Amino acid sequence: MTTHTTPAPLPGGLGEMDPLRWGSPDAATDLPQGARDLVEMAFGLSTTPAPEPAPVPASALAEEPLAALRAAVGEEHVLLDDEVRRLRTRGKSTPDLLRARAGDLADAPDAVVRPGSHDDVAAVLAVAVEHHLAVVPFGGGTCVTGGLAARRDGYAGLVSLDLVRMKQLLAVDEESMTATLEPGLRGPEAEALLNERGLMLGHFPQSFQFASIGGFAATRSSGQSSAGYGRFDAMVVGLRVATPRGEWVLGSSPANAAGPDLRQLVLGSEGAFGVITAVTVRVRRLPEVKVYEGWRWASFSEGRDAMRHLAQHGLLPTVLRLSDESETAINLARPDAIGESGTDGACLMIVGHEGTTAQVESRRAAVTEALTALGGRPQGEGPGESWAHGRFDAPYLRDSLLDVGVLVETLETATFWSNAEALYAGVKRALESHLDGALVLCHVSHVYETGCSLYFTVATAQGEQPLETWLAAKSAANDAIVAAGATITHHHAVGTDHKPWLSAEIGDLGASVLRAVKADLDPTGVLNPGVLVP
Amino acid sequence: MTTHTTPAPLPGGLGEMDPLRWGSPDAATDLPQGARDLVEMAFGLSTTPAPEPAPVPASALAEEPLAALRAAVGEEHVLLDDEVRRLRTRGKSTPDLLRARAGDLADAPDAVVRPGSHDDVAAVLAVAVEHHLAVVPFGGGTCVTGGLAARRDGYAGLVSLDLVRMKQLLAVDEESMTATLEPGLRGPEAEALLNERGLMLGHFPQSFQFASIGGFAATRSSGQSSAGYGRFDAMVVGLRVATPRGEWVLGSSPANAAGPDLRQLVLGSEGAFGVITAVTVRVRRLPEVKVYEGWRWASFSEGRDAMRHLAQHGLLPTVLRLSDESETAINLARPDAIGESGTDGACLMIVGHEGTTAQVESRRAAVTEALTALGGRPQGEGPGESWAHGRFDAPYLRDSLLDVGVLVETLETATFWSNAEALYAGVKRALESHLDGALVLCHVSHVYETGCSLYFTVATAQGEQPLETWLAAKSAANDAIVAAGATITHHHAVGTDHKPWLSAEIGDLGASVLRAVKADLDPTGVLNPGVLVP
Repeated sequence: MTTHTTPAPLPGGLGEMDPLRWGSPDAATDLPQGARDLVEMAFGLSTTPAPEPAPVPASALAEEPLAALRAAVGEEHVLLDDEVRRLRTRGKSTPDLLRARAGDLADAPDAVVRPGSHDDVAAVLAVAVEHHLAVVPFGGGTCVTGGLAARRDGYAGLVSLDLVRMKQLLAVDEESMTATLEPGLRGPEAEALLNERGLMLGHFPQSFQFASIGGFAATRSSGQSSAGYGRFDAMVVGLRVATPRGEWVLGSSPANAAGPDLRQLVLGSEGAFGVITAVTVRVRRLPEVKVYEGWRWASFSEGRDAMRHLAQHGLLPTVLRLSDESETAINLARPDAIGESGTDGACLMIVGHEGTTAQVESRRAAVTEALTALGGRPQGEGPGESWAHGRFDAPYLRDSLLDVGVLVETLETATFWSNAEALYAGVKRALESHLDGALVLCHVSHVYETGCSLYFTVATAQGEQPLETWLAAKSAANDAIVAAGATITHHHAVGTDHKPWLSAEIGDLGASVLRAVKADLDPTGVLNPGVLVP
Repeated sequence: MTTHTTPAPLPGGLGEMDPLRWGSPDAATDLPQGARDLVEMAFGLSTTPAPEPAPVPASALAEEPLAALRAAVGEEHVLLDDEVRRLRTRGKSTPDLLRARAGDLADAPDAVVRPGSHDDVAAVLAVAVEHHLAVVPFGGGTCVTGGLAARRDGYAGLVSLDLVRMKQLLAVDEESMTATLEPGLRGPEAEALLNERGLMLGHFPQSFQFASIGGFAATRSSGQSSAGYGRFDAMVVGLRVATPRGEWVLGSSPANAAGPDLRQLVLGSEGAFGVITAVTVRVRRLPEVKVYEGWRWASFSEGRDAMRHLAQHGLLPTVLRLSDESETAINLARPDAIGESGTDGACLMIVGHEGTTAQVESRRAAVTEALTALGGRPQGEGPGESWAHGRFDAPYLRDSLLDVGVLVETLETATFWSNAEALYAGVKRALESHLDGALVLCHVSHVYETGCSLYFTVATAQGEQPLETWLAAKSAANDAIVAAGATITHHHAVGTDHKPWLSAEIGDLGASVLRAVKADLDPTGVLNPGVLVP
């Protein structure tokens, strides 16, 4: 951590994330004994060399653009320090961590620029256009798909547009139940500001502690409570965007027929079309009651059928998650208890209800009746509380596992119910055939009337070339996803990592449309070049 | 009606719509006595000259493009008969009817072309590009915003692409609860095909009897049961589109983060980006029970507050509609009883519940408890049944009123709750100040957590220049909508009529993006030229 250039700490003192790991080095914890035993049994324990902070490349920014950036946002908000630039290097995929651990920080920005307002962002974009600088919007830095690794070839420099100063709650409309938030607010900060008024977003992705409002919108984020509170893209009713061609404001109404819904073109645009400078979201009242409980199912497919029943009968709880047999066996839904025995070959489902006391009572009763009728066995609140307690812990665990020679990574997809089993089998087969002796675990984390997501966690021995090994396996998994006709990403976004598979999903015409929109809004291509747009 | 060129009649024998009216001439009914009395009192009765079918302009299509069209879809599917071309002239706005009644059928197509498949549509588009023909997709012909009146200047001819032969239910996936429908299926036809399997869409706009699946998608239609079953754009999970640059298929999953949701760019594109040749929608099981009931509120604003409460507390029924004091006073929600007295200055709300017996019981109990606590007075099922019985009748009533010298038209908008009162007052003022002695009635027809729609019905004496009078009033209403920051259209779409106001809503950059997408997908501009894109 550095000096005056570091922003105020997050609520709870989580601090800044280091390129070498999830969270700050202070947050590193020892591997729980259960997980340690499991790793020893599965892969054998080894210790990887303790990663050393590697030097970042020198800033290549010439004097003229540097002076222009300083004029745009103020000298104190243009940072060239190596440490600050190191903290804005890439995101948090396992390949990102492996590269950083191997001393490769080649994607470090030449400067970190911290605008304080929409107008500041617009001024930075004007400088970027004039001097042909690549601009990478930076919110929480939690991207796991290479979305912060923009192309720099052909540009006069690469600027990290760090939105850390844009953390205001700009407006609250309690009658319409909307709030307007600045993009730099991280999950806990936004919740804290809303909670003061008895309101909340209810958006809790695993990256919640660090991820930002702008990032949620730019990547169509989906959270662990999305069954109840909706995906982030479904919460957004208004957007303010700074583009190289000027300001763009959208959001006349909750819904309308005034042509295509252009909000849905900005959502998911990953900084390639513009920089989101304000997001108006639908908010909810804080729940009076939260109850999380466990249910067991004889098989993954029986559990999925039960989820489908709930979704198709208007019975969705607030949280709904189902681990497959393997994930259940090692307790991955409960990071504090990983490796602890107690499985019976069955699958663990987490069901959470939030709302007023009356709402929770009636919904819980209806869900309990349905799940019981479908053959589920209630496990009480123990597994539910354990899941809730550890819901943001998995990425920290990855760091501990990396330290003992295990490579852990996740990937996710979604499809329609009738295709879920084939997709599950196809991705599992692709991963297992590329990673000898790997553990391939899966859960359903998001559920719709017509389908669901599948979220895979893979653990394997790092071996000699962990990066190359993983990239080959991931590529095979992506091919399997495309072959199954599913989506290349349900909620991790496209970035640079998924881009080669995007055209298979949206078609050559879809790719062409993205290029046309990009060319229209960002004619000189300064916004996150190389990200998203095929 | 003509001979072999006429498609099979609709279920219920509704037949084809005539440019002079809603529905077929056979469907014309006498004005109910109550409405007749009301009109006499308000405007004085007069009788307009019985409209005579006017001649359509001769087809201006040259031999070469005509031969190419015949080669594309078969000679029998390229129709030049005057009567067929007359039936494909414009849509069903009151200005459309007034123009036709005045003998103006200048927008008649040069040919009506009836493709039988996606490949046929693609072949027609290829001919259109080669010969520079303007192509107007035609589904149900119910558009009320000039979306069927494409520009023809500079084109070698104007072709109505009549989707009447594309009426198949292509696929049903009962596990995923999706169905794939061809675009030419009209509302009742699609429901009948799904009903056979115990399924339904649940999409019932007022235009339901004639409007088509393709049109629902192309215009982001919203129905009278959208509170329960969702807007049409929320039902769509997949699309197949024929564009001048080739086929475009979208829909890998219920939702995803694979960049912007491009389905939402096709939905609402009004035939300007491509022709939708198949729509995959989420379907529901047919309800066991339907209950519609009336509630009375002391004022429009109290009733709106109650609607807001339901929406923001997870209590939305299947149908929710609230008439303002004026609309309640003349019983517009019950076309069979218009003009009948019985008002107490209060406002009528229609609340409908559909679902399983258990669902309806529990939801009805919860809604009843909430509405009672908020001061609503239950009116029993009488008003609800009356509304349900007449739910598709208003457009027929318009014809009868036009025949006695009354001009009737509707317009609609939507906004956030905190802006609803100002929007209501602004639009009402604009209409009343332009139309001396007009009745301006309003209801809330669609409700969201963050806001609602406002649907206005205007009745005034036709006077000497009904068309010009109405266009001036409508223009003032649109200005008032824009001034209030609301949407220019909640569910009627943009067409040509709303286009001058679109840029104020989506910004110059939004307009620029629409042009960029249009130029990319339809580089020679043959698709519905002049519609939607500013």
